[in-house]
Amino acid sequence: MSPPNSRPQVLIVGAGFGGLSAARALAAAPVDVTVVDRRNFHLFQPLLYQVATAGLNPSDVAWPVRSILSRQANARVLLGEVCGVDSQRREVLLNDGRRLPYDWLILATGATHNYFGNDQWAPFAPGLKRIDDATLIRRRILLAFERAENTDDPAERRRLMTFAIVGAGPTGVELAGAIAELAKKALAADFRAIDPRDARIVLIEGAPRILAAFAPTLSQFAQRALQRMGVEVWLDRHVSDCDAQGLTASGERLETATILWAAGVAASPAARWLNAQADRAGRVQVQPDLTVPEHGHVFVIGDTAAVTQDGKPVPGIAPAAKQAGRYVARVIRAAVQGAPRPGPFRYRHYGNLATVGRNTAVIDFGRMRLAGFFAWMLWGVAHVYFLIGARNRLLVALQWLFDYVSFSRGARLIVGSDPASAQRMP
Amino acid sequence: MSPPNSRPQVLIVGAGFGGLSAARALAAAPVDVTVVDRRNFHLFQPLLYQVATAGLNPSDVAWPVRSILSRQANARVLLGEVCGVDSQRREVLLNDGRRLPYDWLILATGATHNYFGNDQWAPFAPGLKRIDDATLIRRRILLAFERAENTDDPAERRRLMTFAIVGAGPTGVELAGAIAELAKKALAADFRAIDPRDARIVLIEGAPRILAAFAPTLSQFAQRALQRMGVEVWLDRHVSDCDAQGLTASGERLETATILWAAGVAASPAARWLNAQADRAGRVQVQPDLTVPEHGHVFVIGDTAAVTQDGKPVPGIAPAAKQAGRYVARVIRAAVQGAPRPGPFRYRHYGNLATVGRNTAVIDFGRMRLAGFFAWMLWGVAHVYFLIGARNRLLVALQWLFDYVSFSRGARLIVGSDPASAQRMP
Repeated sequence: MSPPNSRPQVLIVGAGFGGLSAARALAAAPVDVTVVDRRNFHLFQPLLYQVATAGLNPSDVAWPVRSILSRQANARVLLGEVCGVDSQRREVLLNDGRRLPYDWLILATGATHNYFGNDQWAPFAPGLKRIDDATLIRRRILLAFERAENTDDPAERRRLMTFAIVGAGPTGVELAGAIAELAKKALAADFRAIDPRDARIVLIEGAPRILAAFAPTLSQFAQRALQRMGVEVWLDRHVSDCDAQGLTASGERLETATILWAAGVAASPAARWLNAQADRAGRVQVQPDLTVPEHGHVFVIGDTAAVTQDGKPVPGIAPAAKQAGRYVARVIRAAVQGAPRPGPFRYRHYGNLATVGRNTAVIDFGRMRLAGFFAWMLWGVAHVYFLIGARNRLLVALQWLFDYVSFSRGARLIVGSDPASAQRMP
Repeated sequence: MSPPNSRPQVLIVGAGFGGLSAARALAAAPVDVTVVDRRNFHLFQPLLYQVATAGLNPSDVAWPVRSILSRQANARVLLGEVCGVDSQRREVLLNDGRRLPYDWLILATGATHNYFGNDQWAPFAPGLKRIDDATLIRRRILLAFERAENTDDPAERRRLMTFAIVGAGPTGVELAGAIAELAKKALAADFRAIDPRDARIVLIEGAPRILAAFAPTLSQFAQRALQRMGVEVWLDRHVSDCDAQGLTASGERLETATILWAAGVAASPAARWLNAQADRAGRVQVQPDLTVPEHGHVFVIGDTAAVTQDGKPVPGIAPAAKQAGRYVARVIRAAVQGAPRPGPFRYRHYGNLATVGRNTAVIDFGRMRLAGFFAWMLWGVAHVYFLIGARNRLLVALQWLFDYVSFSRGARLIVGSDPASAQRMP
């Protein structure tokens, strides 16, 4: 708790869409805002798949949190990893032993991959949540082609040139489309022993259609577009095993050197920190004002919270997290200024967007549905618009223009190392 | 050796400036060219310091070797790490067990850091040769400020905000200038507990002046420019110890959390592969036609070779490597076409360039010397011109323009991990 006479301390854990929008919405409030994150940047996750598929650079989709908040006088930024909450003493514990006091706490720690109890698959089937995931996936995709060029064994070459994507939500669809374009266009002329256009890209989905959050007509449109690009779509199949050699889906074995996991998300451990009730995915069950039962000064927002509205869950997407961040800021402002407390949080759904590939996207606004070139243009404009900073906007737009005109991919560097490489390189 | 009737096999190890220029100069020759590199990209080393200081992205200064050679019909590219040469059988050995036959071999494997017998300093004082070095250095510099913001201990804060650069050749000068600009401009407003402008940047040189390859007037100009930017320049000082807490230079202890090594280079192990004579830095002693004594079909070029001309060593810079690559291609072309063998290699020196900081560079053309704004403009134009590909040229130029106008640095992401972090984070 803050000493008497000082301003109320608002502590925000996580500098994603939810945490940052809360911090910014408190700019004019009579409070001190501290944003803690274990990374020094805000990540624009909707474009992360383009980093993974060599279209963009890490710094095109990320921005230092310090820069974003440097002009907000009541905000400070700390690099640190949270490992617990002491809600009796109103303190957050960092894993280096520091304790950060708060009067109001906002937990916006996001989500990670969910292997549904099979965490041993993680080394073979990385998910796409962090910058390091994206550069690892890029490394694996590009190295698979390099190794296929180097091997004389036809079965091994086939395995190296097979790419499996598990889960056909927007991320899975976007990854499948981008890998197809990479193989069939950008890399097509670069090899001598193999033809990258022979690559086999398999998108595996447990539900009877892809993009389940969209209208069925858009799912069909996107599926046909993927198939025209050479992507195999497996529906109604459940992955029962992943290993260094491939995967098994509903009894069928697929030999593949590259498995990407886009099937499920699990919330970060905020529920455990608070000893609060969570749903199956680990999301904290919050009250209508996004506070945690029995922790009136603790809010949980974004992918970390389970919020139900009109009997349906609020989706784990950026606009929902941003709206929640702004709402919580409003609640805190009202409380510290003695104004009446706002009514419960209401999420306003604008629509779902997913891009399939060059010239092709689907947008579901509910009443209005768009598919094809115009949807793709709108998708591009919306994503450039929501990027932070003129520099990122211009650089992303220019790289897209270059790639569009030249069919190439500029960010094709294999860097760093792969912690699972010992298992993966026979 | 190649089977009868097939075309002569030219094997090039290393896709740096030397190897690539040899490959390209053989485009029209009746030979098959194979380029082997352990990385999938060509690196534009002269701008690597900007990646290390958060001005540019890795992919702005690197380009996939496959793309560069994709339209050269007689060239192929292999990803692989060479571990030996069997010059009896004319084969190169890769560490995965493969053997690559050759009729002509060009070793262009570059150089690495040289700690002059103190390799135990490497974890504390990384050098700047590879992309991974640059992202590691960027990580350490940015994390030092983050940790300084987090600590309450004034001595530790001082140590974290002290940066030592060992070696005042072009790379050391460029790093010192870029860190000074990062601290005093780009980061200046971003912290609350520390003022990044208080950072202490110390450039340590064993010789009596910086930029020893340049004219003394230019050394003085550059030194004064650095000092105006707040860089301390220590001359005539020799580093006798580096550890996790700092370094000792000519008896004086400097407590610092970040040491960068720009003091010496050692050639890659080509001399050992050939069992050939090498100089103290490990460079292969080559004959006037750049072949290795007793290995008439093996050429060594670039930083891997020790070439003396008119009693002076040919410098280890990009233009020298490129000229050597083109010369060797000419020798091979003449040999396979039965034309007379060209005379000995002659290096033509155009000049030395180094940039000190915003608006300030020095250029020594021998007769003509430039210092200041115009030299800096020329340096920028020359570097953009020599980058490969219109995309990289435009992106680099634009990021420079942004940084120039805004005083910011866009590529400030802390990613990956630091192998030495256990030692470095107490």
